Amino acid sequence: MLSLLDLLRRIDAGQISPQSAVSHCLDLIEAKEYTVRAFTHIDTHAAASTEGPLRGIAVGVKDIIDVAGMVTGMGSPIYRDNVARADAAVTALLRRAGGSPIGKTTTTAFAFLDPTETLNPHNPAHTPGGSSAGSAAAVGAGMLPLSIGTQTGGSVIRPASYCGAAAIKPSFRMLPTVGVKCYSWALDTLGLFAASIPDLAYALAALSERPDLRLPDDRAPDSGGDLRIGVLMQDFAGAPEDDSAAALDAAIKAIEARGASVTPVSAPEALAAAYGVHGVIQDYESARALAWEYDAHRDQLPPILRETLDAAQHVPAAAYDDARRTAHHARREAKGFMREYDALITFASPGSAPEGLAVTGESRFNRLWTLLGVPTVNVPGFRNAAGLPVGVQIVTGFGSDDKALRVAAFVEKALHARL
Amino acid sequence: MLSLLDLLRRIDAGQISPQSAVSHCLDLIEAKEYTVRAFTHIDTHAAASTEGPLRGIAVGVKDIIDVAGMVTGMGSPIYRDNVARADAAVTALLRRAGGSPIGKTTTTAFAFLDPTETLNPHNPAHTPGGSSAGSAAAVGAGMLPLSIGTQTGGSVIRPASYCGAAAIKPSFRMLPTVGVKCYSWALDTLGLFAASIPDLAYALAALSERPDLRLPDDRAPDSGGDLRIGVLMQDFAGAPEDDSAAALDAAIKAIEARGASVTPVSAPEALAAAYGVHGVIQDYESARALAWEYDAHRDQLPPILRETLDAAQHVPAAAYDDARRTAHHARREAKGFMREYDALITFASPGSAPEGLAVTGESRFNRLWTLLGVPTVNVPGFRNAAGLPVGVQIVTGFGSDDKALRVAAFVEKALHARL
Repeated sequence: MLSLLDLLRRIDAGQISPQSAVSHCLDLIEAKEYTVRAFTHIDTHAAASTEGPLRGIAVGVKDIIDVAGMVTGMGSPIYRDNVARADAAVTALLRRAGGSPIGKTTTTAFAFLDPTETLNPHNPAHTPGGSSAGSAAAVGAGMLPLSIGTQTGGSVIRPASYCGAAAIKPSFRMLPTVGVKCYSWALDTLGLFAASIPDLAYALAALSERPDLRLPDDRAPDSGGDLRIGVLMQDFAGAPEDDSAAALDAAIKAIEARGASVTPVSAPEALAAAYGVHGVIQDYESARALAWEYDAHRDQLPPILRETLDAAQHVPAAAYDDARRTAHHARREAKGFMREYDALITFASPGSAPEGLAVTGESRFNRLWTLLGVPTVNVPGFRNAAGLPVGVQIVTGFGSDDKALRVAAFVEKALHARL
Repeated sequence: MLSLLDLLRRIDAGQISPQSAVSHCLDLIEAKEYTVRAFTHIDTHAAASTEGPLRGIAVGVKDIIDVAGMVTGMGSPIYRDNVARADAAVTALLRRAGGSPIGKTTTTAFAFLDPTETLNPHNPAHTPGGSSAGSAAAVGAGMLPLSIGTQTGGSVIRPASYCGAAAIKPSFRMLPTVGVKCYSWALDTLGLFAASIPDLAYALAALSERPDLRLPDDRAPDSGGDLRIGVLMQDFAGAPEDDSAAALDAAIKAIEARGASVTPVSAPEALAAAYGVHGVIQDYESARALAWEYDAHRDQLPPILRETLDAAQHVPAAAYDDARRTAHHARREAKGFMREYDALITFASPGSAPEGLAVTGESRFNRLWTLLGVPTVNVPGFRNAAGLPVGVQIVTGFGSDDKALRVAAFVEKALHARL
């Protein structure tokens, strides 16, 4: 993969200019794109800024997020020629930080489950996951140092796990969703993909204008002597496949070897209840968020989305209100529960990327955290016997994104040292 | 004003067709618009639906809300030719309910404070208020039975008070803001204007698909014998002017005469604290929500907004995080506090509409309720000696929109009976 911090160090040292760093990415895209198909649009004339913390950094933007002058296609023929008049807020913030939106990355239609044509960069017979397929695959393939995606169920962390990228879904609304196509306003969360956790921390600090999110010296901590990590199996979400079980096991052994205290934990009952109502909230809100698309263009919706929206029309307001109360209660319970640990570690996805391109995988180990609005990080570094990556997931309490990134960086380093 | 329920009764009785009801509104607009200037666009060919609870109802849509095929101008030259590709969610829901979006109503630029050219329908030398100026004025002038606006500080309740319209700002996100230009994602709330509270209850029930919001028989209750109403002066927001004090006094006397129990109450300290941080949240979020407009078109922003955004760039993340915690705490405190009363009654605006068109008035009696996300209703029915209307505001706990509407309908009826 292509490290953002490495690129910046070479720019700072005068070895390359910001513009040549962006051009380098265009060359990498040209070389690799035909085997990955991560982009819907590439700006081959993308200019680099000479200032800002992300100067020279080419960034892929998921194609439900507006970039002024580029088509926002939503992964749907309904929006085929939909040129964005304005930047989404996160795109404008990216430019403020000196970053270069270099193109639009593929998304499943309206960021739901119908697959894109994107291929897994580690094995083209496997899905890259979704919905942020292109953003995960472009970083996983080493075409870009940074990309932006969104998660409503597991659309950032799952494809990151499948593509071997580091990724964060920060606390709800830390990154503004203005100018991002809505599927569910209570759930949709912007996230970032990068080559490593220190890269991710640097980029999130720059975009959010929260400098405290950067790691000290932009490096992962060596020791975990003071860390208390809770291991959560998420039984309410079913069992993992062997690959994810092996990844979690490897991560636990690696961090215990570096002194972290690792304890199995059970989630309070309220969290399992919240897991169960994620779909009610998602369905009720999507039936309204996509009301125009459904009423005016139902025939152009892809099959999984169309069927889901057909059913979603019938979720009663009372069920939605109940679900929101359940979620509200779980957020409060989670606060107390999570305070006892520096972070939780759990599965990032059920397993490595499923074979075939007909499905994008399952979000069952991600949904609860999206609903709670808490930060979660995919830590890459483990591969199965066939060479496919699979991540582990670090979770902390709302607003503790700094802690999530520090712990994730430590886990990543420990996993690498093991190799 | 033009009553929605009256129109529907005439349609149901076969006295008029839905299409002639819509045409009637177009005639009224043609007769009155030149003295009010409430619209940026009028669809003179608007078709009526023959089905749905809002068949035959012509609706004005604030010009920050997308209606497919019409320009969404945002009250700004930056968006002068910005034709909406899709309906906003609320527009699509309106069509589902049979309503006819008949045109776009004026808004202050990006729904902030720089005035529109709209005039108060009761006296053209006075402001109609803002930011939902056109939506309030069109209903207040009797051109339309229903219109849609938004409130981030006091942009629904204040212009309703100034224009003599009934209006509700429902619980946060009851009406989806998808497709509505964002100023502050934690605050922006859609609201409705109509000729009376029963009209309002009917329309909100239809748009939200929550039939329980309708009043029994679509009529206001006659008696308040079982109601406990708390009178809140909102001292933290400063003193009212004479007109608002007189309106509140008249309302209290009228409902006491009909048997309601009315008690002066003081708000918990946490509410005053929350009132104080509304601006921090609004500023921090608007600096991000309007990042593209500010960075790419600052010179085209009107003066009040430009200066506010200049300052808003400097609100630190830590201040924002503190403000959110203060608001979160206040929402919990409000829950317990409000449970002791069926509703609170308070000022809807500092006074009647200020003279002149240079300012749109103040939102100080509205901001707290927007930040708390609780339903509030403007009850019309009082006029000062010069004939200018001024409302009183009914407030209930989150999700108790039904109760807010029932109490407001009772207050409205009591005020009318007094005349």
